[in-house]
Amino acid sequence: MLARTLGELAVQFGCELIGDPEVSVTRVATLSNAGSGDLSFFANKNYRDALLTTRAGVVVARQEDADTCPVPVLVSEDPYLTYAYIAASLHPSPLPDAGIHESATVAASANLAAGVHVSANAFIDGDVDIGENVYVGPGVVIGPGCRVGAESRLLANATLVRDVVLGARCIVHSGAVLGSDGFGNTMSESGWVKVPQVGGVCIGNDVEIGANTTVDRGAIDDTTIEDGVRIDNLVQIGHNVRVGAHTAMAACVAVSGSTSIGKRCMIGGRAGFVGHITICDDVLIGGAAVVSKDITEPGAYSGAFMAEKDRDWKRRVARFRRLGDLAERVTALEKSTKGDS
Amino acid sequence: MLARTLGELAVQFGCELIGDPEVSVTRVATLSNAGSGDLSFFANKNYRDALLTTRAGVVVARQEDADTCPVPVLVSEDPYLTYAYIAASLHPSPLPDAGIHESATVAASANLAAGVHVSANAFIDGDVDIGENVYVGPGVVIGPGCRVGAESRLLANATLVRDVVLGARCIVHSGAVLGSDGFGNTMSESGWVKVPQVGGVCIGNDVEIGANTTVDRGAIDDTTIEDGVRIDNLVQIGHNVRVGAHTAMAACVAVSGSTSIGKRCMIGGRAGFVGHITICDDVLIGGAAVVSKDITEPGAYSGAFMAEKDRDWKRRVARFRRLGDLAERVTALEKSTKGDS
Amino acid sequence: MLARTLGELAVQFGCELIGDPEVSVTRVATLSNAGSGDLSFFANKNYRDALLTTRAGVVVARQEDADTCPVPVLVSEDPYLTYAYIAASLHPSPLPDAGIHESATVAASANLAAGVHVSANAFIDGDVDIGENVYVGPGVVIGPGCRVGAESRLLANATLVRDVVLGARCIVHSGAVLGSDGFGNTMSESGWVKVPQVGGVCIGNDVEIGANTTVDRGAIDDTTIEDGVRIDNLVQIGHNVRVGAHTAMAACVAVSGSTSIGKRCMIGGRAGFVGHITICDDVLIGGAAVVSKDITEPGAYSGAFMAEKDRDWKRRVARFRRLGDLAERVTALEKSTKGDS
Repeated sequence: MLARTLGELAVQFGCELIGDPEVSVTRVATLSNAGSGDLSFFANKNYRDALLTTRAGVVVARQEDADTCPVPVLVSEDPYLTYAYIAASLHPSPLPDAGIHESATVAASANLAAGVHVSANAFIDGDVDIGENVYVGPGVVIGPGCRVGAESRLLANATLVRDVVLGARCIVHSGAVLGSDGFGNTMSESGWVKVPQVGGVCIGNDVEIGANTTVDRGAIDDTTIEDGVRIDNLVQIGHNVRVGAHTAMAACVAVSGSTSIGKRCMIGGRAGFVGHITICDDVLIGGAAVVSKDITEPGAYSGAFMAEKDRDWKRRVARFRRLGDLAERVTALEKSTKGDS
Repeated sequence: MLARTLGELAVQFGCELIGDPEVSVTRVATLSNAGSGDLSFFANKNYRDALLTTRAGVVVARQEDADTCPVPVLVSEDPYLTYAYIAASLHPSPLPDAGIHESATVAASANLAAGVHVSANAFIDGDVDIGENVYVGPGVVIGPGCRVGAESRLLANATLVRDVVLGARCIVHSGAVLGSDGFGNTMSESGWVKVPQVGGVCIGNDVEIGANTTVDRGAIDDTTIEDGVRIDNLVQIGHNVRVGAHTAMAACVAVSGSTSIGKRCMIGGRAGFVGHITICDDVLIGGAAVVSKDITEPGAYSGAFMAEKDRDWKRRVARFRRLGDLAERVTALEKSTKGDS
Repeated sequence: MLARTLGELAVQFGCELIGDPEVSVTRVATLSNAGSGDLSFFANKNYRDALLTTRAGVVVARQEDADTCPVPVLVSEDPYLTYAYIAASLHPSPLPDAGIHESATVAASANLAAGVHVSANAFIDGDVDIGENVYVGPGVVIGPGCRVGAESRLLANATLVRDVVLGARCIVHSGAVLGSDGFGNTMSESGWVKVPQVGGVCIGNDVEIGANTTVDRGAIDDTTIEDGVRIDNLVQIGHNVRVGAHTAMAACVAVSGSTSIGKRCMIGGRAGFVGHITICDDVLIGGAAVVSKDITEPGAYSGAFMAEKDRDWKRRVARFRRLGDLAERVTALEKSTKGDS
């Protein structure tokens, strides 16, 4: 483990240091669990009690919180962001040496740049380009027509089915499937006929795709995910979808085919989008909401009920189901009241 | 790429051709992006503007739309279906040569028919039958007791755990898991006890199963998916479920154990079904709906709210939570009005 | 197949036998399909008709139901639990011989105890400990820092990304991904910055994890799943989540980061939990409910509407959207009625 002095960290990450610059830390820890060799951060007021009693070697915190911190402080206007940078420097992603594991299979016509690591039992098909320093994890499959940008990382058992173009510095987590056929079927007299899916998937730079997430290839044109998008686990992205730059999607979101989502949107977990709609930039969608039509105005949208005690919920649902009766009773009252006047 | 003349296509697919039969096309494209060597189609009125300005080599369209098309037309009563057939002929599924990749493992007692392709790092266990011209993708695992019908295709990293019988011409997409244990547990004094899952999965002909979808084996009898069913990505099919012939399920649907879904149903994305219920034939379920009891009458069913601006939704929910108050106020009014009369 | 006499089963599983102790059975079957060599059970009154006409070799049933059973009975106070035990003895999990398949890759520094089976194309990285009699299925990947307890089973194509500690007698089903990065991002001026995820996953004994389920590693401390937990397919467990002992989660549940769920909870399918909340022990959550705040009292909670005929549902939603109008009309009536008095 790499030890860094607080003085070095202050210089490298542009923070004022309150405390001894010779103290050193080797890893990150939570305020509660940190010891003298650990760096922690304070960004959420809910953890103030933990701050007051922390035994961390140093805490990244705002100026205004420095006084109440019992240990050295690295002062930052955005402690969580500064923490993210320092944590990345203390815990660098382990990158194995370049080379192709003897159990991996790489087609003769695949083109691998310098520094590529191909792990055990990976398979890289023909007509594939792999950029510099790409990490291809164990069991990963990269099908024909795929391009992977420099320094991207494909974790164990991820699959790029075919015609997937991935930018630089992307991360595709384990079990994710990119480039599978979209759900295109049309009915004939003898049943469903598959509509060939001949488009690809085009993914920008600095995109992260979660574990067991699926991104379908386009029906004709490409499915597109722009730069800097963050997608969590078990998300479904249908064919021809566009996800705008720097949009983030929490787990279990489902986006139906041909829907376009703008830039810098934030989509809560389990939200769903019907197909063929357009969501503008800078939209927030609440968890579990169902988006059924275009959104043309930035802002927050939601549509889910929250769980309650079962008997309370059942009572509410019963009242909801009697709303028609209630409305009729109000109408009757209105008539009778009018009759009165 | 294969070039086909419009004359040939007209004959093969039974369309009237309006235009030069010697013109040829090599691939499909959207109305907007098509060039002179591309075939496109017009089936959705929303794309009329694109039709009027298309530069496609030919467009598959209805007779009534032929006049407004600036390029040659292949006339069809169902342009999307005709497009699907032509697209399949222009873009045939690439089928690699028969043979077993040297990195694949096939148990000595597995039985492979002629024309089977087994890709890199695939594993086929003993007591397995693979039909003619089956494609087994890289990393695919086929466990004991499985049967795969002729011309089926198992894409990269799909898993048939055990006792899965798959018909002919099926497609199982990457990451799908068929034949995993159902969720069977019963409580004892010392915690949950696993109920052994000893049934299999029985899948008909011409079935397509999406990426990262899971279909559990039956607890005792088989889980059954009938001919021609189409299942999208990330769908969960519990143990002992039956899905009737030609039913289609969009992504992220969840069907709990022992539920039976009829033939020709269409299930919207993220819909859910509780266990042990029966849905008749020809039912449409809206996206995100929760189906909690038997459906005995064909038709459309739904049950989801749609997202709105967050402040509007919050107001609605607040009113919903005061429904009890409102009902009491109406009752009070009714009493006082009666008192008046 | 192993034949067991009813006399042996009665002794081994502590049941009174009503019938001939020399009769033998070899497997389990449903009441409807069982033949004379099969064991079945009767625990759910809905199947009484099937009981009355069953041709099973023996039925596990309660004393009170024994009289109406036309075939021998093994009497049990909890027939489903007794059935589970007997089924496990009649259908033992097939455990292949110890050994490492020649196509598997095991790092020199991995430590494998006696009796471990490593299947085809599996990969076990360095700094890994595998306990006695563990089954590692084909295509399984076990990354650095993982520990797998004795007699656990990792099914085909499951992935333990890194730093996953799994107890004894666990089952991880195919396609499950444990130890993938949590969804930690923070915004900078140039877009999302990844927050390094350096915690692990800590899983107790006797835990079962469903197919294609994802359990993220902690951001700093570990994600924790306690003893005896049962998790179905396609479930998402976010970083830093705790799932208390003997809790069961049905398919497609999503638990956001840092949420703590108590012991012995039962979570219905497709339920969701927002992040950073605490659910006490002994809570039941209905299917598809969204849990948005702490639950401090044991009991049942729910929050989903159930599907109806589409026209009825649309009418209800329309009324719901006019609730504000209705409330105003009631207020107007109240004023006018007051005016009357």
